[in-house]
This record gives sequence, C-alpha cells and structure tokens, in this order.
Amino acid sequence: MYAVIMAGGRGTRFWPRSREKKPKHLLDITSEKTIIQETVDRIKPLISPNNILVVTGKKHARALIKQLPEIPSRNIIIEPEGKNTAACIGLAALHLRKIVPDDIMVVLPSDHAIADSRKFIDVLDAAAKVAAQEDGLVTIGIKPSSIQTGFGYIEQADSFQHIADEEVFRVKSIREKPDFQQAQAFVKNGNFYWNSGLFIWKASTILKEIARWLPDLYAGLMKINEALGSPDEAAIVPRVYKKLASISIDYGVMEKADNVFMLQGDFGWSDVGSWDALWEISAKDNKGNVLTGGGKAIFEDTEGSLVYSPKKLVALVGIKDLIIVETKDALLICKKGSSQNVKKIVEALEEKQLKKYL
Amino acid sequence: MYAVIMAGGRGTRFWPRSREKKPKHLLDITSEKTIIQETVDRIKPLISPNNILVVTGKKHARALIKQLPEIPSRNIIIEPEGKNTAACIGLAALHLRKIVPDDIMVVLPSDHAIADSRKFIDVLDAAAKVAAQEDGLVTIGIKPSSIQTGFGYIEQADSFQHIADEEVFRVKSIREKPDFQQAQAFVKNGNFYWNSGLFIWKASTILKEIARWLPDLYAGLMKINEALGSPDEAAIVPRVYKKLASISIDYGVMEKADNVFMLQGDFGWSDVGSWDALWEISAKDNKGNVLTGGGKAIFEDTEGSLVYSPKKLVALVGIKDLIIVETKDALLICKKGSSQNVKKIVEALEEKQLKKYL
Repeated sequence: MYAVIMAGGRGTRFWPRSREKKPKHLLDITSEKTIIQETVDRIKPLISPNNILVVTGKKHARALIKQLPEIPSRNIIIEPEGKNTAACIGLAALHLRKIVPDDIMVVLPSDHAIADSRKFIDVLDAAAKVAAQEDGLVTIGIKPSSIQTGFGYIEQADSFQHIADEEVFRVKSIREKPDFQQAQAFVKNGNFYWNSGLFIWKASTILKEIARWLPDLYAGLMKINEALGSPDEAAIVPRVYKKLASISIDYGVMEKADNVFMLQGDFGWSDVGSWDALWEISAKDNKGNVLTGGGKAIFEDTEGSLVYSPKKLVALVGIKDLIIVETKDALLICKKGSSQNVKKIVEALEEKQLKKYL
Repeated sequence: MYAVIMAGGRGTRFWPRSREKKPKHLLDITSEKTIIQETVDRIKPLISPNNILVVTGKKHARALIKQLPEIPSRNIIIEPEGKNTAACIGLAALHLRKIVPDDIMVVLPSDHAIADSRKFIDVLDAAAKVAAQEDGLVTIGIKPSSIQTGFGYIEQADSFQHIADEEVFRVKSIREKPDFQQAQAFVKNGNFYWNSGLFIWKASTILKEIARWLPDLYAGLMKINEALGSPDEAAIVPRVYKKLASISIDYGVMEKADNVFMLQGDFGWSDVGSWDALWEISAKDNKGNVLTGGGKAIFEDTEGSLVYSPKKLVALVGIKDLIIVETKDALLICKKGSSQNVKKIVEALEEKQLKKYL
C-alpha cells in the first residue's frame, strides 16, 4: 500500500507567510511541525515512509527533502510544471508501477489538517479494502458544517457495505465547485458531502479510468512511461508534460466514472484554506482570540482575532474579528471573513512587480 | 519677547512610538521634523532661537539639545521632576527674569500641531500686545469642532478691543475638563472655547498672580530663585521642587484671576493627542486612508485607516477605521475612536513589568 502526497500548490491565501519559495505545506501553520510533516506523520501508522511518494515542483524539492528525512529521496517525484490533479496523479501512478506492478495508492493533499488521526487511519484502511475488492475509485466525503463554494461536492447514494466501523456508500454524482445558491441547496439536501481530495484506488484502476475518460492525457502519460528510467527522461518528460491537459481528476474522471464509492470522513477535517480556516481550528482564549507563532500579545477590549507575530509584542485595542500576520518584511491586517481576498494582495504584488514580497 | 516651551510630557497615547526614552515631542509624527522642531520653527518668525527657553526633564535634555541646535543650551531649563504647569511656568519665569528684568513670555506646549502658522504668529503678536498693555493673562481659545472631554474650556465674555485683525475678548470663566454632558452643553452654548494651553503674559505678571493665588508654591519658587546661580543650586532646587504642589496653571491661577483675556486661535490647531487626532489632521487618499512613515502599503477594500510602518509592506484587506503602528519591537492595532485607550496598553505593560516595551 502506497501513499501519494500532492505537494504542488502555493497557498497564496497564506501570504505573507506563504511565498513563492515557501509554499503553505512547507510552513509550520497548524503546529510546530510543518503541514507536510503533519501529513506524513498522520499517514505513517498505515503506510511506512518507504512507501510514501511526494509529488512536487523542482524549486521546492530540496526544502521538502530536508523537511522529510524519513522519506527516501527517490520517492520525491518532480512534476515538471503544475498541471492540475489528473496529470499529477497519473504521473505518480506510473512511478508507483515502476516500484510494484500494482498496489493501492492513497492520494493525499499535502496541506490539510485532521483533528482525529486515529479515525482518519481507520477510514483510509476501510477505503483501501473497498478499492482493492471492487477495483473502484474511493473518495472521502466530509459532512458540510457550513455553506462553502470553495469545495467540490460528492452526492452520496445508497449504502454499499460496512467494513469494520465504517460504512461505504455508492456515489450518485460528483459536482464541481458550486455557486452560492447551489451550495446552499446541497447543504440543505443533506446527501452532499465536501470533496476532501482524498482518493483511494489501485494504480492500475486509476490509469485504466484515465485511459477511458482522458485518452489524450493517457497517451501523453504513456510517452512519459516509456521515457522513465531511459537516458532521455530529463529531455522527454518535461516536453510531454507541458502538453498535457490541465484538468482535475474530479472533473476529468470522477464525474464520469461509475465505480465510485465514498466513505464519510468524520475526523475533524479542515483544508486550512485560509487564515479564517486556521482561526476556526485553533484553540482560543475565552474571548475567541488566537495567538500563534510563540509571540507576545496584549488584548484590550478585543475578541475573535488571530495574531501571528513570533518576534514582536502585538497590542490590540478595541478590535473585533481581525487577522494579523507579521513576517520579516510584511504585515497583513485582514478582516476575518475576508481572508479569501488575501490572494488579491498577491495579485496586486504581481501586478506592481513587487517581487520581493511574493 | 521670549518663548517658553513646556516639554515635560510623555505622550503615552502615542505608544508604541512614544517610549520613556523618547516622548511624543521628540518624534517625527506630523512631518519629517519632530514635533518640538515644528514648534520651534513655528514660533521663530516672532521670537529668535536665542529667546526660546525649553523646560524639560533631565533624561530627555540631551536628545532635545541635539534636535534643537539653534537654541543655546543655556536656554534648556531642567525641571527636576514633573509638577504640572503652575510650577513649570513659575520656574521658567524665574529663569527668564535672570536674563531680562521683565518681558513678555509666550508659553507653548511642545507637542501641538498648527496648520496655519502665519495666522498663529498674527494671533500671538496681538496677544503679546494686550498682555503688555493690560498687565493681563492672555489665553488662546480654540473653537470646538466636536464634543471633547479631554480639554479644559474658556468661556468668552465681551469683546474688549481689536488689535490689527484680531479681536480680544474678556474671559468669563475658565473650566476644568468637563464630563460629557457638560462638554455637550459648552459646545451647544457657543461661547465656550477649548483651552489650547497657549498663554501670553509678562513674567512679572504671572509671578505676581502665582504669589496671590498659590502663595505656598510662590514661597517655594522664591527659595529656588535664591539658589539659582549659587553653588548650592544643584542641591537645593530638586529638594524644594519636590515639595511644590502639583497643580495646573489653569486650575491654580487662571480660574481665579480677573485680568484674563482670550483671543480666538483660528489657525487649524490640534493637540495631536492620540493616533485618532493624527488621522484627523493628516492628508488622506480618496478612501480616507493615511500612510505615514514612508512605508509601502496595499489597501484592498479598506477605508478610514492610518498606517505607520516605515520598513514593512503592510497589506490591509476588508478593513475599516483602523490604526496600525509598527515599530522595531512592537505592533499596535487599534480601532479608530479607541486610541485614547492606548494608554491602557502602557499601563498593562507597566503592570506586567514588560519594561523593554515602555
């Protein structure tokens, strides 16, 4: 059994902490460990570090290897460029097949947080059993706790079977990120779950499905497969990869496939998608304030706020629902509820060519 | 004609910029010059630097001398400790009498801002003429632009005379800082003016009035007077000064005296008493945002805010009416309208013995 951790994202919504050179998953945001270290630690009870592959971009590979000393460096797969999840997962499946002819692969985003890691392992273990037994595509759905337009949704169908304490459901439909009205209807309906981006399948199964639903992408992957390990690998792989369609596995495969299953991931999941989300999952004082990064703060008539300032004393006076993040060269002050717009700051910096802050 | 600048205050409401070692008047808050440099520059058209005295505490004298190279260092009067304005003004009057037997002294707070410095000079010039001619106590009143409980008030009586373009009024009463209801009534009444803390009188006049209304304080001042220039000065002055009553000139003298006059100070006066007041007098962009200290900022969906951050890029997202002040070791985030409470932060720091931030 293998894990594939997708570590390609940048996490611009965690600016000013996340930077081009230091994306979100390489940062210590949820604990003293970095998010990817947390992700690896979390899966280790099920899958040994020797069987954990990580897909990442060239420029972050070194930092990643340094952060994950237990993982053999041959397990770090360099993705020539970001091409969304279908290509990334396909590439990982090819690499996996070079190690073992066929096995279960658990696909994990690099940058999520999970409160109950024991339950997490139980769910994945059950999911792996269904995936092996049914040759299916298994997803983990998260019961919505609010109306969110930033996630895809999974529509649950009938119960299929029980494995240990876990119930496996058939899937009626997979939906792309909805607009607000749709999201509202999904949540009200009760059969819709957030798509966590966790997938469990055999390498052969997902490649077969890619071949069926994304034949062009599959043809590209086959060219890459031939090149892997050959003297021309370094020349061919980036050239072929560049031409691959940039499409998500959800949209490209999951929406169309018919052997899709879902387990409920009732283990305190968060995508830690923004500073708001971090406030949500953090321990708070009795006024709802969060102080992270080991700094000092004085809260005067202040509530519902999050402060990250490892070096400086921060004093807040008469503040409600604010995010304050201080780094060496930048300071973010953001109304809670607006932290999705932090990416607009990154866009503005790009426009203004203020590269040193990117 | 002489000026006496009272530079004894600390300005805790300008924390984290103002510190024990660097009080408000030594900071460049309203322009690239420090506030006391602005004060000196403003009075210079009327009074040469040789005739400007500055009263300050021992620990700030050196920084002050450095900031005011035009003023002879013999003009820096060391106040052994802070004893409110009656003692401070009395001490300055004694020093002044050592230079000239008697002359007009213009008393100025060290830390105010004035938009129209030409008008300021015209008003003081007229005030000096009344003070000389009537042997009176002349004050400058500021027409209230809002209900304020932080100022004393001057109740204007009949017009007394015109000097050039300025009208001189008799004063009906001088009022201490009122409560909100009183302040509201004062402002509604229309005859009440903010007490600017600017006073104009002859040294002999104010000493005579102190003798009349504050005989104990006067007796102390006479002991100091004897000691000045003697070998025992350094020993006697602090010992006597320590015992002087801590009382304001307004409460101790002005409220009781009957030869009090007022001119209206219609010259864009501000006491720059808080970060809020600084926002009020600062140039704003079309969303009401103020960027000071020469730093960089990105305002995303943000209005009515003030940023001081000379070094770091500051990004604001979804913010309304906030004060943000960043220094080397501390960061203040304060709701506009609450900046009077910044002194509570200073009190908290004192309580917690966090001396390095004081």
